[in-house]
Amino acid sequence: MPPYKFMKIKIDLSNLEQCLPKDISPKKRDAFKTLFYSKMALLMHEMYKGKITSLPKAAFWGPAWLNIWYTPGVSAPTLAIRDKEENSYKLTNRAGKVAIISDGSRVLGLGNTGPKGALAVMEGKALLMNRLGAIDADPLCIDSRDENGQNQATKIIDFAKMVSPSYSAINLEDISQPNCYKVLDELKETCPIPVWHDDAQGTACITCAALINALKIAGKKIEKIKIILFGAGAANTSIASFLFALGADAKNMILFDSKGPLNENRTDLKNNPSYYKQWGLCQKTNAKQINSKEEAFKDADVLIAFSRPGPDIIAPELIKLMAKRAIVFACANPVPEIYPEQAIKAGAFIVGTGRGDFENQINNSLCFPGILKGVLLCGAKKITDTMALAAAKAIAKRAQDTTLNRHHILPDSKDIEVYPLQAAAVAAQAQKEGLATIKITSKQVYAQVKAEIIKRDKISKLLIKNNFIKRPTQSLIEKVFKQTLKEIL
Amino acid sequence: MPPYKFMKIKIDLSNLEQCLPKDISPKKRDAFKTLFYSKMALLMHEMYKGKITSLPKAAFWGPAWLNIWYTPGVSAPTLAIRDKEENSYKLTNRAGKVAIISDGSRVLGLGNTGPKGALAVMEGKALLMNRLGAIDADPLCIDSRDENGQNQATKIIDFAKMVSPSYSAINLEDISQPNCYKVLDELKETCPIPVWHDDAQGTACITCAALINALKIAGKKIEKIKIILFGAGAANTSIASFLFALGADAKNMILFDSKGPLNENRTDLKNNPSYYKQWGLCQKTNAKQINSKEEAFKDADVLIAFSRPGPDIIAPELIKLMAKRAIVFACANPVPEIYPEQAIKAGAFIVGTGRGDFENQINNSLCFPGILKGVLLCGAKKITDTMALAAAKAIAKRAQDTTLNRHHILPDSKDIEVYPLQAAAVAAQAQKEGLATIKITSKQVYAQVKAEIIKRDKISKLLIKNNFIKRPTQSLIEKVFKQTLKEIL
Repeated sequence: MPPYKFMKIKIDLSNLEQCLPKDISPKKRDAFKTLFYSKMALLMHEMYKGKITSLPKAAFWGPAWLNIWYTPGVSAPTLAIRDKEENSYKLTNRAGKVAIISDGSRVLGLGNTGPKGALAVMEGKALLMNRLGAIDADPLCIDSRDENGQNQATKIIDFAKMVSPSYSAINLEDISQPNCYKVLDELKETCPIPVWHDDAQGTACITCAALINALKIAGKKIEKIKIILFGAGAANTSIASFLFALGADAKNMILFDSKGPLNENRTDLKNNPSYYKQWGLCQKTNAKQINSKEEAFKDADVLIAFSRPGPDIIAPELIKLMAKRAIVFACANPVPEIYPEQAIKAGAFIVGTGRGDFENQINNSLCFPGILKGVLLCGAKKITDTMALAAAKAIAKRAQDTTLNRHHILPDSKDIEVYPLQAAAVAAQAQKEGLATIKITSKQVYAQVKAEIIKRDKISKLLIKNNFIKRPTQSLIEKVFKQTLKEIL
Repeated sequence: MPPYKFMKIKIDLSNLEQCLPKDISPKKRDAFKTLFYSKMALLMHEMYKGKITSLPKAAFWGPAWLNIWYTPGVSAPTLAIRDKEENSYKLTNRAGKVAIISDGSRVLGLGNTGPKGALAVMEGKALLMNRLGAIDADPLCIDSRDENGQNQATKIIDFAKMVSPSYSAINLEDISQPNCYKVLDELKETCPIPVWHDDAQGTACITCAALINALKIAGKKIEKIKIILFGAGAANTSIASFLFALGADAKNMILFDSKGPLNENRTDLKNNPSYYKQWGLCQKTNAKQINSKEEAFKDADVLIAFSRPGPDIIAPELIKLMAKRAIVFACANPVPEIYPEQAIKAGAFIVGTGRGDFENQINNSLCFPGILKGVLLCGAKKITDTMALAAAKAIAKRAQDTTLNRHHILPDSKDIEVYPLQAAAVAAQAQKEGLATIKITSKQVYAQVKAEIIKRDKISKLLIKNNFIKRPTQSLIEKVFKQTLKEIL
């Protein structure tokens, strides 16, 4: 084995690649990272026993304060809310709270992990909302099965409506098809609080932000390009709608599901009412009724894949068929449909994935904290696609104003500025659409979100500094690094 | 008006009485406190916008850590849980989490405030669990109404079961009769995680702890006393069971509901299956078939009232009929059935209420944080009455070991020691009953609970010191004080 560089550099999560042997192959390097993160995640989740905790935001200055926060004093805010329900936003933490609801029936790219399995992911989302959006989110992973063990959309719908008095918004997450559509469609109509489906609207928002900038760099106009959407689930069906709104030509767009391209011959979709969205797209897109992968990829300008975990789901040969300055977003988790290095080698000009350890991460975490915070601050009654598109444009613009190039089509993950900016854009759009219940200017939203995020960051740093949150030891990280390398090489 | 003492002393919540005019009547003084807490609570709830927030328990050391806490790393713990569900207790925050579920149909003594009104109270409970039990609790106030606007027990039951994968225990709270019985009975049988009904088991636990010590001071034996339970709801029906377990003589116990004493003539209860508990008590208690208040109170040693908010629900004349060294617990919230001063004047020897601003507060907050923490740490599958009784005995003993006298029948509210002690007793009892799934000694439970409570206290103090949690101004407190006094005098 070659001498490892980690003998010289202090291994850290941010410099993994530098610490690897210089002659490691790209494929092995990527496999190393996947395995390393997996091992570390397991150890770290065990060490911290979760990622989010609760904390008083009010304080006791002696036991007499219990008379204020509990009986007898608490009767006063209780009655004030009973008599005027909107007071629940002023006298409790409700205004800052989002419920993350999932039945764990389709988690990341892992399939049905059950609600308990989904907990680790939803806690991750709660952590992101906490740090990046100054939102208090509760992961509510629920058992949506009926007596026969089938996940039921109606159970999720009932649950969300029942719990709505305790929250300001609901974030639906990782619910399998076709339940996810039914749940979202019905809740959008009947839930008393706004509902966000991150796999649909969130993914569409951030993908559109990335595409706006990728097209700008590649010098392509959205009206004129050929687009392939690989995968026809919640993500790509939503992305299709967003792309239409941005001016994309439906005729020149081809969607694929696991059975092949969507076109008017797809009677399987036509005959299943659960797939009405997909059938609508069969009729609207793919004007040439293309029926093969090769024909579809030929001269395509953009590939957006949200299908199954890779790495060998999309062959490099298909990428080679694409147009010059092709844009490839391979977004399956945890492993993209094709590794970026392979896609680039096959001729792609700009490549994005869902992963933070590759360049151009296209991940909802760049949008849902800001969008939801904007929704909370203006008291929006709904979250429309146009509000999400306003966020996409604000995100794209932030990258343009900072680090935009083909390796950085989206704002840097260290750039917290993007969250207050998009929150302000979302709130402004909600005002424009008559959906805001609180009068607040976009400047005020921007300032408040920024202040709250900074406050949370300072609190976290203070707790770390005072050793209330401990850091894993250097030797543990090195041990995992060595063990992983041994398994990979 | 007399010169107020607050001109000289700095008014604080802990010295309200000293700041009042010296010649104020006891009744006016009590009314002052009720109104002052009410006004302050409204202002403080508005200032802090709730009492509990979320905080990362793991930290980012740079954005690379997102690869651990979120994709791609988070797939590893997710799969580990999918493959072995018990891992959810090790790899997420689930082991530390309790859901506080209420439909707000009977909140404190306020009646049906709806789920939004209940939020302020449940956040208060979450705050207590956080500070006193080192538990992360989420207030889940739910809409349990059907299409006809009726609160449905089945809806609460479904909700609790659905959300159970995200929590280690459920705390049912403030659900109206008779739904509360049905919900508890069914969930105790079918819910995958332990269920605690604070209004029943919690109230019974702390009332028994108080009674054990009151009897000790009064020199009375539980086997020989005459007991009146005023109110026959969740609290007093549970208390009756606990008292039987402690050795009380059912024949010499008389319960009252809003229609009078429970006895075998109560066909209204006999004919309504929802009131099967009350009918059971009709047959078991009140051997003399007493049918009047006067006869019941005559020579009674103990009165335990959990009925309607006072102050004039129990007349001093009734107290006068009681035996020597009578024990009176008047526990309605927010105002006791009779003010302590009146009860004492009428001859009561020891008086307790639900309020923290009178001596001998009999409040569940002294038991549910410790009991639930004990349950979490030993992974108990159920919470039996015998586990709650073990806690009651530990609480009583703690008072005996410290400040026990007729003015302090329970441990001091500043005494955090009581929580680890009862958690240890509960965990030991669970082990004894074969209900614990985690092997842990009571010493270990004691040590861990104590360390966690101290850690949370230190974090709170650190945040206050660094001005992340602000204190209300002195002038605000004084303003409310003066305003209240003006309204009362």
